[in-house]
Amino acid sequence: MRILSGIQPSGQLHLGNWFGAIRQFVKLQEAGHECFYFIASYHALTSLRNASDLERATMHLACGYLALGIDPARSVFFVQSDVPQVTELCWVLNCVCPVGLMERGTSYKDKVARGLSPNMGLFGYPVLQAADIVIYDANLVPVGADQKQHIEMTRDLAEKLNREVGTEERPVLVVPEPYILEEVAVVPGIDGQKMSKSYDNTIEVFATPKETGKRVMQIVTDSTPLEAPKDPAKCNVFALLKLFATPEETAEIADRYRAGGYGYGHAKKRLAELINDRFADARARYAEYEARPDHVRDVLREGGRRAREVAEATMERVRGACGLMVNR
Amino acid sequence: MRILSGIQPSGQLHLGNWFGAIRQFVKLQEAGHECFYFIASYHALTSLRNASDLERATMHLACGYLALGIDPARSVFFVQSDVPQVTELCWVLNCVCPVGLMERGTSYKDKVARGLSPNMGLFGYPVLQAADIVIYDANLVPVGADQKQHIEMTRDLAEKLNREVGTEERPVLVVPEPYILEEVAVVPGIDGQKMSKSYDNTIEVFATPKETGKRVMQIVTDSTPLEAPKDPAKCNVFALLKLFATPEETAEIADRYRAGGYGYGHAKKRLAELINDRFADARARYAEYEARPDHVRDVLREGGRRAREVAEATMERVRGACGLMVNR
Repeated sequence: MRILSGIQPSGQLHLGNWFGAIRQFVKLQEAGHECFYFIASYHALTSLRNASDLERATMHLACGYLALGIDPARSVFFVQSDVPQVTELCWVLNCVCPVGLMERGTSYKDKVARGLSPNMGLFGYPVLQAADIVIYDANLVPVGADQKQHIEMTRDLAEKLNREVGTEERPVLVVPEPYILEEVAVVPGIDGQKMSKSYDNTIEVFATPKETGKRVMQIVTDSTPLEAPKDPAKCNVFALLKLFATPEETAEIADRYRAGGYGYGHAKKRLAELINDRFADARARYAEYEARPDHVRDVLREGGRRAREVAEATMERVRGACGLMVNR
Repeated sequence: MRILSGIQPSGQLHLGNWFGAIRQFVKLQEAGHECFYFIASYHALTSLRNASDLERATMHLACGYLALGIDPARSVFFVQSDVPQVTELCWVLNCVCPVGLMERGTSYKDKVARGLSPNMGLFGYPVLQAADIVIYDANLVPVGADQKQHIEMTRDLAEKLNREVGTEERPVLVVPEPYILEEVAVVPGIDGQKMSKSYDNTIEVFATPKETGKRVMQIVTDSTPLEAPKDPAKCNVFALLKLFATPEETAEIADRYRAGGYGYGHAKKRLAELINDRFADARARYAEYEARPDHVRDVLREGGRRAREVAEATMERVRGACGLMVNR
């Protein structure tokens, strides 16, 4: 099975990215699937238009993914804009995509409701997303349950193009299936809301131990005094702790919460230790990649080359089926 | 000055295309401008999704333009989809294009009002049009007065991208000016409305003399009897005649209309002769091109190569200014 996923470069990788996506990407790679993972630079332009920020974020993601276990020998790892064919397919899919389908997009509606002044890139975001998926003949797209709608749109558009310019025996595009990520952990941010860059409540993966400790100390807790019993189920620190601690230690800490005399400060100290231990090796590898940007770009170059090969083959089918005469 | 214009492949070239566009394109070329003329195959996908129809229409336009005087030694003549860079720039411009700007597009509003179910290609048509213009650093875009809005949109988008990712000293995109075509003749169709493929009222340029005669006979006239005086200003046949006849002959025919005893049939017969004379050479050249499709494709290939060179240089500026990291 061929699997595809992209991540938008928009800041420092955080625990939410790790538990919600990257960890599963590594698992899928380890399970022997053929994985295409890309850094969604074109998508980033919908909200980020500062060249050096985008370059920095792209490089950060590249080093971060490699450090966290994406293996370029097994997975095709590349930058979206190294395969410009995807914007060509986006245009073709635009031509079979009803405007109404985009207007009903929940993520677009959310952004407009939050007062974002929408641009055409944001509006047509799902069409480029669809192009990203089908251009690599992907069979499976790992998504959280809340992203199912985008895969439904991709399926709609692929089926529509197949109906309009393909034949029953020779469909032009592979219609992908969603691969709903099971047990995606809910990762609270330091304020208790879902951890997300837009809420400025993240704990970064690639911070120093000291920075991590400082950030963990900022996690919001209630004012139950040290000596009083506490409910672990209501504590943001505990919600994060259980993602890192063994089941045994988790149970032990829960007992201490309930017994009283165990303060949030103790729990935070332990959480910072656990985070720093978990990512110590990845942080060391990250520093190595960061020190060798030319090597990282070579890795991306090779990934882009492999991705373009697949994308160009798909586009040859699409152009032929649509009657786009090629004189190259 | 660099001039750019495109024409959408969507059927047989007709007198409206000639008087409204191609004739001026040839004049601009003869005046020594650097002209880029393209066949808008990507735009055609917004309404045409039958491969062989699009291929046929593309080839017809190519042969027709060459036969009518577009000289590939002087003008860069190519098929839009041979320069896929334009879809990449379209995506970048999407990201600075407010959705509201597209919603106010008159041509989009017209199409929706006429009951067309809009697709995202139709909705975003002006953004691709803008990309077509600025990717070739065009200074001037020849348009009829009714198309001024699209050039305004192009200017808006180019200025916006320049503001957002360029610097005052080094703008990323050239901001084009409209070149309003003067004395664009109003060419009535056989029913008296503006000649247009969508009204099915056209007289084709590359028909046989017999077909032309037959079509001219279908021009709608009133029922004034042969012997009665007629008003040339109210006659569709006369409106077309004066586009082809010399001023002397035009005056003479007007006199005959007013004198009576000169029927619409006489005028139609003369009109068909004039059309057939005017296009006799072009029709012969068209037949030659049509008989040598490989030669025509070589011409388009060379035009595409020259266009891609300019387009790729623009995209290098754009990618750099936006921070799209290139690993190719």
